[in-house]
Amino acid sequence: MATDLRNATGANVRVACRGGHLVSPTPGLALGYVQANLVILPRDWAFDFLLFCQRNPKPCPLLDVTEPGEPELKTVAPGSDLRTDLPAYRVWQNGELVEEPYEITKYWRGDLVSFVIGCSFTFENALLAANVPVRHIEQNVNVPMYRTNIACNPAGKFGGPLVVSMRPLTPSQVVKATQICSRFPRAHGAPVHFGDPSTIGIRDIHKPDYGDAVEIRADEVPVFWACGVTPQAALMHAKPPFAITHKPGHMFLTDIKDVDLEGE
Amino acid sequence: MATDLRNATGANVRVACRGGHLVSPTPGLALGYVQANLVILPRDWAFDFLLFCQRNPKPCPLLDVTEPGEPELKTVAPGSDLRTDLPAYRVWQNGELVEEPYEITKYWRGDLVSFVIGCSFTFENALLAANVPVRHIEQNVNVPMYRTNIACNPAGKFGGPLVVSMRPLTPSQVVKATQICSRFPRAHGAPVHFGDPSTIGIRDIHKPDYGDAVEIRADEVPVFWACGVTPQAALMHAKPPFAITHKPGHMFLTDIKDVDLEGE
Repeated sequence: MATDLRNATGANVRVACRGGHLVSPTPGLALGYVQANLVILPRDWAFDFLLFCQRNPKPCPLLDVTEPGEPELKTVAPGSDLRTDLPAYRVWQNGELVEEPYEITKYWRGDLVSFVIGCSFTFENALLAANVPVRHIEQNVNVPMYRTNIACNPAGKFGGPLVVSMRPLTPSQVVKATQICSRFPRAHGAPVHFGDPSTIGIRDIHKPDYGDAVEIRADEVPVFWACGVTPQAALMHAKPPFAITHKPGHMFLTDIKDVDLEGE
Repeated sequence: MATDLRNATGANVRVACRGGHLVSPTPGLALGYVQANLVILPRDWAFDFLLFCQRNPKPCPLLDVTEPGEPELKTVAPGSDLRTDLPAYRVWQNGELVEEPYEITKYWRGDLVSFVIGCSFTFENALLAANVPVRHIEQNVNVPMYRTNIACNPAGKFGGPLVVSMRPLTPSQVVKATQICSRFPRAHGAPVHFGDPSTIGIRDIHKPDYGDAVEIRADEVPVFWACGVTPQAALMHAKPPFAITHKPGHMFLTDIKDVDLEGE
């Protein structure tokens, strides 16, 4: 099934999730379609989180936000149902992870607001298309991610550190990657740092806080991008009584294409 | 005073407003500093309006949003006081304009959220610096603005038409202006249309809905940009019980520079 879904549409992947046929990670599925991070919060926490995203657009580039109680993403995925259309979810209570279900119908409430946030897969596809290598894809592992000493701009109770992902590149590839990623501000945009990891508070580049370590070759520097795990760190910081997110790597597939996110 | 303020800082202009020395329009003041549109709403209307801005980034590019009750713009104008630092305001009740005061201290409440939105002056300065002419500045009149038949993406009760501003240019200037304005997504960005005004529902280009008509020469086409009057049209559409905005042309001066808005 996963193999069939590589050349499927975003809608095909959502239907597979809805039917219970897909419960595994989504990298490589529906190639060319935008994949997204998901955060669901009660209405009375939604303003502060929307403000947090507005103030931190590099880690939290919003693709769409629903009205309270609306489970369909009418703009980027008409006909979708956010309660069933992801392979796996995380349910949070008071900032603690309490369950990782495959659907969230029983948790749904009329006051829930859903935030759909751009994802690095979009710019990784653009890098690969331009022959800029992506090491964790070559090594078939998860991208390495690190908590930094860069504080996000707080909003209400939301705050915490910027989380970054890392891909090693040669200097000329760094230039090319900066040009390419600058075209995708709604998929984390240009890198936030490259070179010495300690400058941004990373003690050991070989021990990521999330994901897997990857090889950094002698002619390469580590390059750091704002990461979509940042909003989950902000949730753990704010400790809202109730929240739902996607399970990392198990993203929401939209109907829009990576190329649609180019430019403004 | 206005002449002295041409080469002043944004903070100088705010202090002049606060002291009651400046009650006139701000175009041309504190050249190089970002000027901004202002919308103030009660907390219980703020989520929907923030969502409206998120869904309509070309007419409503957010520069900053305050916490409820906070009159200082800590990010873009530390030390500012939104209650006194604009030359003139508009007070709205149920979508109707009820007063145009020079300060709003008596209206201030602990639940008010302020939205500071990018303004076309930023890209006009960049156009002029690149020798792209701006007709209404040449003619020393207000920019012509039009209500279009393009609907904004609604959010809660907020909706209504996209309002555009118009500047006539030759085709080669249109290309140059598109390149320049694309660099300023937080100041309305690239044009939304050029050429036939009827395509976007404008009946008579010589009769703008707001501002003044300007000359369009034989070798020029009208070029249309998303306009910061759009959020005021959205307020009239949503009819919140209470709102405050700047008086058109009487903008809020920030401490950030136009060049700071370049790129992402």
